[in-house]
Amino acid sequence: MARRINLNADLGESWGAYSIGDDAALLDVVKTANIACGLHGGDATVMRETIAAAARRGVSIGAHPGFNDLWGFGRRDIRMAARDIENLVAYQIGAMLGMAAAAGARVTHMKAHGALNTMACDDAEYAAAITRGLKATAPDLIHLVMPGTELDAATEAAGLPLAREAFVDRTYEANGRLTPRRIEGAVIRDPAAAAARAVEMVETGALTARTGETVRLPFESLCVHGDEPTAVAAARATRDGLAAAGVDLVTLPEMLA
Amino acid sequence: MARRINLNADLGESWGAYSIGDDAALLDVVKTANIACGLHGGDATVMRETIAAAARRGVSIGAHPGFNDLWGFGRRDIRMAARDIENLVAYQIGAMLGMAAAAGARVTHMKAHGALNTMACDDAEYAAAITRGLKATAPDLIHLVMPGTELDAATEAAGLPLAREAFVDRTYEANGRLTPRRIEGAVIRDPAAAAARAVEMVETGALTARTGETVRLPFESLCVHGDEPTAVAAARATRDGLAAAGVDLVTLPEMLA
Amino acid sequence: MARRINLNADLGESWGAYSIGDDAALLDVVKTANIACGLHGGDATVMRETIAAAARRGVSIGAHPGFNDLWGFGRRDIRMAARDIENLVAYQIGAMLGMAAAAGARVTHMKAHGALNTMACDDAEYAAAITRGLKATAPDLIHLVMPGTELDAATEAAGLPLAREAFVDRTYEANGRLTPRRIEGAVIRDPAAAAARAVEMVETGALTARTGETVRLPFESLCVHGDEPTAVAAARATRDGLAAAGVDLVTLPEMLA
Amino acid sequence: MARRINLNADLGESWGAYSIGDDAALLDVVKTANIACGLHGGDATVMRETIAAAARRGVSIGAHPGFNDLWGFGRRDIRMAARDIENLVAYQIGAMLGMAAAAGARVTHMKAHGALNTMACDDAEYAAAITRGLKATAPDLIHLVMPGTELDAATEAAGLPLAREAFVDRTYEANGRLTPRRIEGAVIRDPAAAAARAVEMVETGALTARTGETVRLPFESLCVHGDEPTAVAAARATRDGLAAAGVDLVTLPEMLA
Repeated sequence: MARRINLNADLGESWGAYSIGDDAALLDVVKTANIACGLHGGDATVMRETIAAAARRGVSIGAHPGFNDLWGFGRRDIRMAARDIENLVAYQIGAMLGMAAAAGARVTHMKAHGALNTMACDDAEYAAAITRGLKATAPDLIHLVMPGTELDAATEAAGLPLAREAFVDRTYEANGRLTPRRIEGAVIRDPAAAAARAVEMVETGALTARTGETVRLPFESLCVHGDEPTAVAAARATRDGLAAAGVDLVTLPEMLA
Repeated sequence: MARRINLNADLGESWGAYSIGDDAALLDVVKTANIACGLHGGDATVMRETIAAAARRGVSIGAHPGFNDLWGFGRRDIRMAARDIENLVAYQIGAMLGMAAAAGARVTHMKAHGALNTMACDDAEYAAAITRGLKATAPDLIHLVMPGTELDAATEAAGLPLAREAFVDRTYEANGRLTPRRIEGAVIRDPAAAAARAVEMVETGALTARTGETVRLPFESLCVHGDEPTAVAAARATRDGLAAAGVDLVTLPEMLA
Repeated sequence: MARRINLNADLGESWGAYSIGDDAALLDVVKTANIACGLHGGDATVMRETIAAAARRGVSIGAHPGFNDLWGFGRRDIRMAARDIENLVAYQIGAMLGMAAAAGARVTHMKAHGALNTMACDDAEYAAAITRGLKATAPDLIHLVMPGTELDAATEAAGLPLAREAFVDRTYEANGRLTPRRIEGAVIRDPAAAAARAVEMVETGALTARTGETVRLPFESLCVHGDEPTAVAAARATRDGLAAAGVDLVTLPEMLA
Repeated sequence: MARRINLNADLGESWGAYSIGDDAALLDVVKTANIACGLHGGDATVMRETIAAAARRGVSIGAHPGFNDLWGFGRRDIRMAARDIENLVAYQIGAMLGMAAAAGARVTHMKAHGALNTMACDDAEYAAAITRGLKATAPDLIHLVMPGTELDAATEAAGLPLAREAFVDRTYEANGRLTPRRIEGAVIRDPAAAAARAVEMVETGALTARTGETVRLPFESLCVHGDEPTAVAAARATRDGLAAAGVDLVTLPEMLA
């Protein structure tokens, strides 16, 4: 019986006159798109076009809310009130649902972006705020999170649909968290290396940390980054490597079905 | 038999650390709130709190999308592509629906804000774009427009629920359009004068233009502005004047029922 | 012989249609204005008008750069690269010098705003970055800092003109840092209490911490906040209390002369 | 005796995580850079790096202020008060002078960007406001304008240093104005065609309008656009074509010397 996995990427991060990422190429590879919602990247027209392009290819669609920090592309750590985080998430999910309605498509998951996601992995208050924003606005969406984090725990506690992801192009620490980007080698830019990690993760249910330890993680999705220059090559190599290993790529709802 | 009219105001325009308008006082007077959606004013937390405050008082709630122009408060005339306008409107309606879901309240209408509204009164392309954005995202919302405008015509052509408004605290030109704010006297700041205009409009179905002509307009709603220092006094005087004239104030959905 | 002290406040934080603070009233009381530079508050027109209003009253003028975080009013802690901080500071000082030139006035100091200032009190990298931005752009400006902080040390190490401030309307911890705003009572809203603290500080060169300890601090300036509802009353009480105690209020350059 | 001309391009329009244009390649070709100032594009770090890169190559540096419209990249027509335009220009020039000081370089000209420039070509009030902003902040800068426009007239009336430019990669109308971008063919993307126009313009002091007329224009500078995908090829072809025709490329100050 064929093994299956979901493959997701962050997309739709262009804004106004500014283009970033090769969304069309990535949408031909991945099965699930996390689409920026206008506050750290993405604008209303980019959202609609990205949603439509994903829907045409049968790629499942998710809201990808971040900090209200366009300059920082949602990657700066920001301290703010939990109540405001909850509302930022609700706002962005609502905007995404509106654009999906306009495009005649359906949103099936949510994944927090950048520093909002990273901070919430370790901060129970942020994790709870994100989860409340999701539950209040669209409790039927799958929450895509990193396994073993506060975000994972908060989602489970809230009784929301849940999926977990592992990164094929980032190294991990022994505690199961991503190596911070500032550390040399944290981003894996060699497509063959990314593909090999993906196959290893699916075949073993575990990955090897930067410092050599075996880290066992539950996951239903693999993530490739969309904004690195090597993103498309890494995604294609991952897809091809998984196919060669007999692993089918499916959408996130199919994976959880 | 008692006559009825709706009374609406623009609210929820505070943003971050910046407060504007006395929303609590106005919500005790009006029956319908047009709530800013984050791009010309309003943020996610302000939206949620304003929605909740309106819902508690039985005030009906509308999305109030404007240009993506926070500095200009949505009041600068901006030339942009119709496709982008359509998407801006869809985005803001979606965000409002999301925040209303989070607050457990219902959105029943949409009204364009400031220069977006004013430009669309005379520009058929803008009017069609706004109407398409509304229809694509939430076709059951009532579109609240100025009568006799391109926005009125586009809404009717699209077959959307429609209501029309007249302003109690702005003067009109003979052609049925508002006197531009730059003209002295365009904003009526005397509460008694605003109240008298409101009663005259409801009793006669017409108003007297700045230059003396009688202008006959269909309308189901009266608008008072929320951001003038005299807004609350004008709104209260209008409410009291209408009550004294035997006119009941009702929500926008009640008015159209 | 009369004692002297400088009294400063943060001003010019209005932006677009949004007004905040009673700048005109405060400018009649203080001797030095820290004027926002457009990124956390303040816009080009507000800057010019605030500069002109300060100059007319003989109030000395400073650039008050903050994080590029308008929504957070510069009060959210943000993690970012030191190089970007240095440039943000240089940019805002340049903009302030440009607006002062347009207004025919002179800028004589710089003081970092909000979270940028607070973070740099404890973060040597941030402190050095702010100081580099100042030194590269306008090395003759006085840097107004909190005493005993990394910002104080970095400024001294860079050999820049330096002044230190104490807050009349904030409580202190035993280590000489401000009590965080989230702690009840951190902001002193009683004008008489603020005035009494000011007189105590000038007369003794020390203040009493929230937990009772005596904290001895060097300072050439006292700061009153501009954005609290009680700001004007606190500032007037402080001025009057100091006058009654025989203390003259002077501008920051006069204080250092 | 060798003929001479200046060649300028708009640069430094990247912002945060968003890159646009191939600045390094263009800086190797042009003699003058119009550098965005943070409000329609460009940020403090981009400004400083672009200034430094220009200075290293002996490329003369100008402030390139635009509308406060990042989403629209300064290309949307916006109606606003003349006083605010004047201050926007002063603010951006000040910021550019600050970043140039930090980079140890000198700013020698100013050129308005995008819709601000285009609107001011026909709008005397806008033209006067831009000119006032320049004169108030940095009256020694050369104002680079399109010939025969209101901006040209306002600069001359104000007695400011003045240079005029012609576009090698845009077609003209018979009245000497640029063909609007929305008209097919308005942007010349064929490098050979752009180069041929440049040589024709320098050799004849005139150009051929889209509709065939000869348009005689005074100019001391030729402009190539930096944000078209073909920009670098067009700029190189123009440089090589002018060299082959025996025309020396010089900086803007050299051209006016």
